[in-house]
Amino acid sequence: MALFPAFGRQALITGQVERIGPQGHIELKNQRGEILPPAPGSDLGTHAGALASVIATIKQTYPQLRMAAIGHRVVHGGPDLRAPALVTPELLKKLEALSPFAPLHQPHNIAGIHAAAEAFPGVPQVACFDTAFHRGQPFVNDTFALPIRYYEQGVRRYGFHGLSYEYVTSELQRVAPNLYAGRVVIAHLGNGASMCAIHDGRSVASSMGFSALDGLPMGTRCGQIDPGVLLYMLDQEKLNTAQIRQILYNESGLLGLSGGLSNDMRTLEQADNAQSHRAIDYFVFRVQRELGAMAAVMGGIDLLVFCGGIGENSRMIRRRVCERLGWIGIEIDHGRNAEGATVISSELARTTVMIVPTREDLIIARAARAAAGVPEDAEHRAA
Amino acid sequence: MALFPAFGRQALITGQVERIGPQGHIELKNQRGEILPPAPGSDLGTHAGALASVIATIKQTYPQLRMAAIGHRVVHGGPDLRAPALVTPELLKKLEALSPFAPLHQPHNIAGIHAAAEAFPGVPQVACFDTAFHRGQPFVNDTFALPIRYYEQGVRRYGFHGLSYEYVTSELQRVAPNLYAGRVVIAHLGNGASMCAIHDGRSVASSMGFSALDGLPMGTRCGQIDPGVLLYMLDQEKLNTAQIRQILYNESGLLGLSGGLSNDMRTLEQADNAQSHRAIDYFVFRVQRELGAMAAVMGGIDLLVFCGGIGENSRMIRRRVCERLGWIGIEIDHGRNAEGATVISSELARTTVMIVPTREDLIIARAARAAAGVPEDAEHRAA
Repeated sequence: MALFPAFGRQALITGQVERIGPQGHIELKNQRGEILPPAPGSDLGTHAGALASVIATIKQTYPQLRMAAIGHRVVHGGPDLRAPALVTPELLKKLEALSPFAPLHQPHNIAGIHAAAEAFPGVPQVACFDTAFHRGQPFVNDTFALPIRYYEQGVRRYGFHGLSYEYVTSELQRVAPNLYAGRVVIAHLGNGASMCAIHDGRSVASSMGFSALDGLPMGTRCGQIDPGVLLYMLDQEKLNTAQIRQILYNESGLLGLSGGLSNDMRTLEQADNAQSHRAIDYFVFRVQRELGAMAAVMGGIDLLVFCGGIGENSRMIRRRVCERLGWIGIEIDHGRNAEGATVISSELARTTVMIVPTREDLIIARAARAAAGVPEDAEHRAA
Repeated sequence: MALFPAFGRQALITGQVERIGPQGHIELKNQRGEILPPAPGSDLGTHAGALASVIATIKQTYPQLRMAAIGHRVVHGGPDLRAPALVTPELLKKLEALSPFAPLHQPHNIAGIHAAAEAFPGVPQVACFDTAFHRGQPFVNDTFALPIRYYEQGVRRYGFHGLSYEYVTSELQRVAPNLYAGRVVIAHLGNGASMCAIHDGRSVASSMGFSALDGLPMGTRCGQIDPGVLLYMLDQEKLNTAQIRQILYNESGLLGLSGGLSNDMRTLEQADNAQSHRAIDYFVFRVQRELGAMAAVMGGIDLLVFCGGIGENSRMIRRRVCERLGWIGIEIDHGRNAEGATVISSELARTTVMIVPTREDLIIARAARAAAGVPEDAEHRAA
């Protein structure tokens, strides 16, 4: 969560609740990075309790707070919602109906909206969807080759990480309008990872599909996998859905390939052994593969952007991904890459490569400020 | 099946049994294309009966036949078998142990070997695997990002269509040795469809994975799909494995996307309506996507080869696939493409595009001839 003032890009409070349940842990910090004492009676055993604890800690820190608007990240906006939406009873009904598409996250997102409404009655709330940025994608990238009734009932390639892509795209529009108007691939590489092809500012393809499992391998999620493997798990291994879900969401990806060593790229880089190499090699290979696929979809590539925890911080992954991509005009300047400069491509390379630190929180803040009637340029004005 | 003489590329008898079961139909033809009368008492209700009927019809046609060797296509050779293998009791045990990886096909392939051994006792038999050609692929293309025990127990990207890729590659080596030594993508597009990246004659990546479901959409198979869709079918739709298998193998792909119109590209091309466009557009899009991915894996592409029923015969699909690929040096000559010439790229294009009619039967015949001690150049000698 983040608490923003009316103006500026810096939050007053940031933080999160981790491991909701008996081991729950709340950590909110102020602008100086100091940990705020949690409000007494914090209950971190459930999502509802965790949200109440966050709100109580905010209120305790800023007793005079006048909340102008509340923005929520909501994982799923379904096939139709293409922009942030003001929360109304109708919207909530719509979002509830989408829970079967994201059973692990959507109900918690909705619970958060209810908790905020109770704590701040009358304050406008706005829902920002991780799917919205991709909803204009052409049919061929939005569908699977299933009986067409699945597409019609909403089994589509929703993409996700939309808030991150929207932020990065808006930054490109601001600082590099010519490149923004071209053929862009953004690699959002973090504990969750996906890639998005953006042509003229609009998402035309993404590596994630219907769920948060598809596409690139992630910290503990498998990424692209043959559906036949699930049939094998069901028929030959006699696993049930819960067991398969556990394997694919929590025991796969970097963690699985490294034989349980780690889901964290930093740990794997340091380990530098056979297990970590397996995981890192596979990760790099799949990013390169997806880059080629997205360039093919757009008929070429003008700009590659790295963002997310791995994309912003791992010079090794950026270097490895860009190796052997000279054939599509990618060539990085190793000095700039090591420094983590904004532009890391070499000067004569045909394709620009950039690092743009993503700020999903600002996209939600923008939507909340709009709902509160704060002027559009508030983000770049002093508080 | 095909019955070959010791020499030459032309079979004496070719044909197949279709719809094994109560509607079973046997059709074997001689070199002049005339349908051979089936042997009396043909039982097409089971795989074993169908094989016995084929053998009886062959014996009836060539009563003096001296069978020198028998070659079998076997779908699965597992992680270790990289070449055709002489059938022994040990091999049969190995192949049986692989049945969980291909439960729909492997048992029938094994039954075929037993039936042939009974009909032609003492004649050497050789098994040719659809997986063998791909077994030298690097780890990153052979694995999924699952817990590493899955890789170790054989859940790998086997690729398939290996007999076709092996034939086409051997033809390239014969007629275009310089291109053969470069970076080649072969698109085997038929009712089953896959693509393979081949560098210096060796398979380095393929679009199919663990089963025959993955990768490109096919006549009735889905191709690449988010594993989350299967969890949705299980949890939300309460489908069982048999129902899911039926959807993914028999009701998806071109048939599913066209709303049940057809699984046959020829019918879809002729239909030229909204349903057929959905299916064709998706098919073309996924082939282009995979082409970009494979070029990325190899650091570029020197040669694209079309083969298979669609690849060899549909000028429209070849043209559509090659559109917008100018950025990787692909540009076809529309006249040559319409004629179905061997080389269909325009003269100045950086990347060559060819059509090479595939002959999986010849690869099996080569293995059988080798087992029978026929000289290696027998295929290109007159009978």
